[in-house]
This record gives sequence, C-alpha cells and structure tokens, in this order.
Amino acid sequence: MKDEVILLDCWASSYGMRVKIALAEKGVEYECREENFQEKSPLLLQSNPIHRTIPVLVHNGKPICESLIIISYIDEVWHDKSSLLPSNPHQKSQALFWADYIDKKIYSIGTRIWRGKGEDQEIAKKELIEVLKNLEGELGNKPYFGGENVGFVDVALVPFTSWFYTYETRGSFSIEVECPKLVAWAKRCISERESIAKTLPHPHKIYQYALDLLRK
Amino acid sequence: MKDEVILLDCWASSYGMRVKIALAEKGVEYECREENFQEKSPLLLQSNPIHRTIPVLVHNGKPICESLIIISYIDEVWHDKSSLLPSNPHQKSQALFWADYIDKKIYSIGTRIWRGKGEDQEIAKKELIEVLKNLEGELGNKPYFGGENVGFVDVALVPFTSWFYTYETRGSFSIEVECPKLVAWAKRCISERESIAKTLPHPHKIYQYALDLLRK
Repeated sequence: MKDEVILLDCWASSYGMRVKIALAEKGVEYECREENFQEKSPLLLQSNPIHRTIPVLVHNGKPICESLIIISYIDEVWHDKSSLLPSNPHQKSQALFWADYIDKKIYSIGTRIWRGKGEDQEIAKKELIEVLKNLEGELGNKPYFGGENVGFVDVALVPFTSWFYTYETRGSFSIEVECPKLVAWAKRCISERESIAKTLPHPHKIYQYALDLLRK
Repeated sequence: MKDEVILLDCWASSYGMRVKIALAEKGVEYECREENFQEKSPLLLQSNPIHRTIPVLVHNGKPICESLIIISYIDEVWHDKSSLLPSNPHQKSQALFWADYIDKKIYSIGTRIWRGKGEDQEIAKKELIEVLKNLEGELGNKPYFGGENVGFVDVALVPFTSWFYTYETRGSFSIEVECPKLVAWAKRCISERESIAKTLPHPHKIYQYALDLLRK
C-alpha cells in the first residue's frame, strides 16, 4: 500500500518548513495543504484539537502535531534514508537539547523584533544575538550541526534564517556582522542541500508577508 | 565498569521528580545532589551553561539537560527494564505530544495560581482546569496514560500533582471536584508505584516551601 502523507501548512511558517525539509531529505511524496487561519479546515481542527495550529502531518489518516515531534517521527518511519537524529543516546540528547533551545527562544524573540519597537525591540535584538552566538558555539568548525551532514538541529534552525532579513530590516541591525559563522552555515545549507533550497521562501517574500500582517 | 550517575536537583522541582521516578523505574543507582539556587555549584554551571537550571543528569561525566530529554535518555540507555516510551512511532509521537503539552502549560499556569491573585489568578484557575480536563480526556478509561503500565506521560505529569494542594489552597478551589478521574489516577500512581510514592514529597511540605518562597 502506498503511504498517504498530507501536510497541513502555512508557507511562511518556520515550523512548517522544518517538516517539508525533513520530508524532502527522506524523499517522501506528500500533499501540502495551505491552511487559512481565518477559517481553519475541518481536517486541521480534527487533527489538532488541542492547539489548532499547523504544521500537522497526517500519515495514513493518523495525525502527528508539533514540528519537532513530526520530524522525529519522519526520521523514525522513513529510516532507510540517512538519519537526522544520531543513534548514540548522548549525541541524540544533545541534538534534542539544541532543537528545544531553538524552540524556546527564536520565534518569540524574533516576533518581538519584527513586531516591536523602542526599548523592548532593542532588548530582543540583544537576546537574539546572544542565542545565535550560543548556537554558533555549538556549531563550532563543523559544516553542519549534524557534523558532515545535515541533521536534526540543522532542520530545526535553518527555516528561521528565511526570517532573518525581516528581523534585520525591521530592527535595523545586521545578523551577519554579529554571527558571520552562523550566516555562512545558512548559506551553505541553501547552496548544498536541495531539500532546503527548494523549501525556504525568498526572504523578501517573508518580509512582504510580515508587513501585510502588521497592517492588519 | 559501574555507571556513575549524578543528579543535580532541587527536591521541590516537578522536573527533578520526573528524573527520580524514571531512574527508580529503571532501578538505576545514583547520587542526588541538592543545588543551592543562591550559589549554584560549579558542576551545574559547567554542565548546563545555557540554562543553568536543574535537573541535570551527569552520566559517566556527560551531562544531559531538560527533564523530558533526560527521561528519554534514561529510557533508551537502560532499555533492559520495561520502556516508558512506546516503540510504535505513532504511539511514541502521541506520548511526546502530551508530555510537551504538560511542559507548555502546567508550570506556568500553576505559578500564576499560587503566586498570583485577583483576576489573573481566576483566569489561571480556569486554564488549569481546562488543561487537566484535556489530559483526563487523553487518559480515558485506562489505568495509566501508558496503558496498563506507567509510561512517559505518567512520569511527566505525576510530579505536578504534589503541587495540587498548593494550587488549591492558594487558589481556593478543588481540582478533585472538577477532575475526579485525574485525581483518582494520581492516587493510583502513588498507591501502586513505589517509584512514585517514594519520590513525591508530601503536599504539605511543598505548600510550606511555596509559602517560604512567597515571603522572600
């Protein structure tokens, strides 16, 4: 039986992009359905009644919610392709730690930058740089967080780089000046991994999307 | 070589209790070191430089941080005892979903109840009941979230029940009236699982701890 794989998504969501990259890394065919937040689909409300948020992966009729849980699931189910999570338990715990750190920090701080102004925006800019420097420290001199290959932390983090232009433009600062190694990593991900290059929207398109949201 | 297992902990932390229950379920011997938050130990600062929080498990010199990641790690490393996480990928994703839900909701809402007052405290009480009713729905008629045995979600949730008396007393409400099945589950966990009974502090001791914190 062929797998039925449906992704409930919003194109500008970094969390949705994670799932698309993981599916592309594994070579899984799927149907992507764009959700309308003003009128969420019955399938979304039924598949994620608790949070009512995207992304949701519906695999052979069974829903999986929360992006990091979805990419762990994809990694486990389609295990014939190279793994995103290390098999060594300690290395795996470290990858999960950094992905959790990204989840706890970047979206909320980034939103305070592009939606905010004044003192709180300045504080958020400093916080973002501190977080990205911590991530740069974890990257070290490796080409990817996963080592020689793209891994779980790369998939968790790289979608947010498509929002960097929006953070920088709205916040009048340069992430590349502060975190050159991290920006070089992001460029490497896009130039070397088709799964990432074809998933990330153009940063200007994200910026336009953010401006449209601000106008509402 | 005998494993060296050190837990950096605070006795009243629900997150620390999770780790103690998981270690007890697996029959792992360990040394528990109580941290002083006014003067954190060099081992804590070195093992968790990013968050500087407990619990941290140091296994043969290697630190693992964040309680849910720690209990996944314990489950994987000491896999000879019965598993906390299901091996089926979809069932595993559901257990991770509910544990993540607990992490996103209970501590922050609970703190707004026992530290708060007035309108926000009333809102937080309603939110807590809604969250616990969702968890009651997931429990259904099973004896444990893990089915016939204690599983990942049971370990993630049951420590917070030692704080229920504090929430109820400070908030002047009864969780048992609203969520009788969940409270019955908590009692079952304590009466039937030694790992839980010997880990959870007496609710009055937690209440005294909370009052001491409020005085500071």
